[in-house]
Amino acid sequence: MTIPGRTAAPPLIAITCGDPAGIGPEIVSLAWAEAAPHHRGRLRVHGDPALLRGVLAGRRGMPQLAIETVAIDDPRPSRPDSILVVDAGGDREAVAPGHASAAGGAAAARAVEAAFAAVLAERADAIVTGPLHKEALHAAGYDVPGHTELLARACNLPDSAASMMLWLPGAAAGAGLGVVHATLHEPLRSAIGRLTPDLIESAGLRLATLLAALLGRRPRIAVAALNPHGGEGGLFGDDESRLVAPAVARLGSAGIDVTGPLPADTLFLRASRGEFDGVVALYHDQGHIPVKLLGMHRAVNITLGLPLVRTSVAHGTAFDIVGRGLADPTSMLAAIDAAASLVEAGGRRGLNASGPVP
Amino acid sequence: MTIPGRTAAPPLIAITCGDPAGIGPEIVSLAWAEAAPHHRGRLRVHGDPALLRGVLAGRRGMPQLAIETVAIDDPRPSRPDSILVVDAGGDREAVAPGHASAAGGAAAARAVEAAFAAVLAERADAIVTGPLHKEALHAAGYDVPGHTELLARACNLPDSAASMMLWLPGAAAGAGLGVVHATLHEPLRSAIGRLTPDLIESAGLRLATLLAALLGRRPRIAVAALNPHGGEGGLFGDDESRLVAPAVARLGSAGIDVTGPLPADTLFLRASRGEFDGVVALYHDQGHIPVKLLGMHRAVNITLGLPLVRTSVAHGTAFDIVGRGLADPTSMLAAIDAAASLVEAGGRRGLNASGPVP
Repeated sequence: MTIPGRTAAPPLIAITCGDPAGIGPEIVSLAWAEAAPHHRGRLRVHGDPALLRGVLAGRRGMPQLAIETVAIDDPRPSRPDSILVVDAGGDREAVAPGHASAAGGAAAARAVEAAFAAVLAERADAIVTGPLHKEALHAAGYDVPGHTELLARACNLPDSAASMMLWLPGAAAGAGLGVVHATLHEPLRSAIGRLTPDLIESAGLRLATLLAALLGRRPRIAVAALNPHGGEGGLFGDDESRLVAPAVARLGSAGIDVTGPLPADTLFLRASRGEFDGVVALYHDQGHIPVKLLGMHRAVNITLGLPLVRTSVAHGTAFDIVGRGLADPTSMLAAIDAAASLVEAGGRRGLNASGPVP
Repeated sequence: MTIPGRTAAPPLIAITCGDPAGIGPEIVSLAWAEAAPHHRGRLRVHGDPALLRGVLAGRRGMPQLAIETVAIDDPRPSRPDSILVVDAGGDREAVAPGHASAAGGAAAARAVEAAFAAVLAERADAIVTGPLHKEALHAAGYDVPGHTELLARACNLPDSAASMMLWLPGAAAGAGLGVVHATLHEPLRSAIGRLTPDLIESAGLRLATLLAALLGRRPRIAVAALNPHGGEGGLFGDDESRLVAPAVARLGSAGIDVTGPLPADTLFLRASRGEFDGVVALYHDQGHIPVKLLGMHRAVNITLGLPLVRTSVAHGTAFDIVGRGLADPTSMLAAIDAAASLVEAGGRRGLNASGPVP
């Protein structure tokens, strides 16, 4: 008999399917059917067993898996042949695949709330989420932009407490590319106006901390420049010397292996070739353009700043391919893997309990 | 006997090696040794025959080619076995490979001046340039950022008259991705402040005109948004509705197949998959980050706004790999191919003589 608990058994990972009208249930089922994620954690899907049964039976390309409803305190390992569902309860309204609806939004939010409750009750070590649809969420009465804010509010924290890292796992274990943004969801004008050495330094600290946990070693990070050619020695702006260089110097003094500011157009090429483990991007598109080009289907979104481990696929609900047998579970598999690594490195309450560990 | 002239024979293409201390002479020699470019044009290298001879004999991985000095009015086709050099004259100072020097900068500038003179004298139809080194150019007394400005001044035009398109040729003929920037070499803050519908419309017109010439058909172009998620319906800025949408509407009214504003992070992914032939980028890194990631070694820089056809490799002198047998001529081959296409489509004076042809 094994004793449950994160040191004695693989972490318990609470997975949600996201909006049931999207490809979320498909990628969860496809990922479940593989052996690898069950070596990383004891998996549970929090949601509606009937809905998942309908997806498996009704959508093209789905694996033939059993669905078993389990209690939240069931400590069993999971196996690829049978999906273990913790029933999230709530209304059982029909959801039309490929369309945003209040019912879909409500089901998605309920599943996240159930997964959060499991973590709160110490019945799960991490949350891995499928893609939400924002309009559906709004239609269901949840006035939040997405998962991160939903979870921040559940933790009684302001939306601004939470941030994210984009993570592209590498081909080999212990390799990959992480991107943390100094500014994110705001107009580019205001993002640039808000940049300070503090903001950039803070992003670098979060990046180095999370990468150390994921990679199990001291990461090499770089900070992007704001201006063309990295400012071309002051010819194209002084933000590099005024804002970025001081942040890089402070990060270096804190013992972080950091380089910068580096011209953004060649930096991501260099990072993608393995020269750096992570990049601080100064604004949304500076980080998102390269990450999506380098591998949108395998990118993972990792939440920072909340007292729990939560990872997510970085893609959306992809309504246009729902039920067509085209959904790719790579990002879901990578999200489960990253969640397990973070629990192993930092414990169930994430890296926030122990502070930065670069 | 063939009569010289662009309708009777392939275009005469004046190639320069760029800074002789860089990989320029290597990629020119490697490209020359291939059969394909000689089917596209009658090639000439404008430069120093002795220097080229030294490169062929002294650097690793160079093809075994003869060097033949020819007169500027020699109409012969070129062949892969013998480089035809039009002597650009000037001092014959030694240049140390891998290091910036006034001698290297002077040799590079002299070659460009010779190629320009050949076009002016109607002895060449297009210029294709190897990579310059800016510091070397400055050391030689040329106070210009690069080729484009050097040529603008030779044409008695202000630097601002010239602009550029980044061109990534596709795997098949008649396919590829072109990027024209609405703003380019200036601080990001001032670039954003300077954006107007006129500036964006003008970039779209240049993009569509050049793509039509390169592809031989009506191109499908898209205009990138400035803000995250394309402004998220106004939540993250109003630049999309205020600046970009009016420009897109005007381009559409002018008969151009145009879409936008589209979120920049997914737009380049979509374009790279063939959904668009070209993208208007609003600022330097928005266009350069994706193009360099998608294929820095094969990207071509095409000059717009000058009364001549000029293309260039989009990479630099790569001092760190000079003489190591690592130089890749893909971009040089693509630059020769693009120059030939533009001469065929628009004539020796480029597309500017005939005005926009979207």
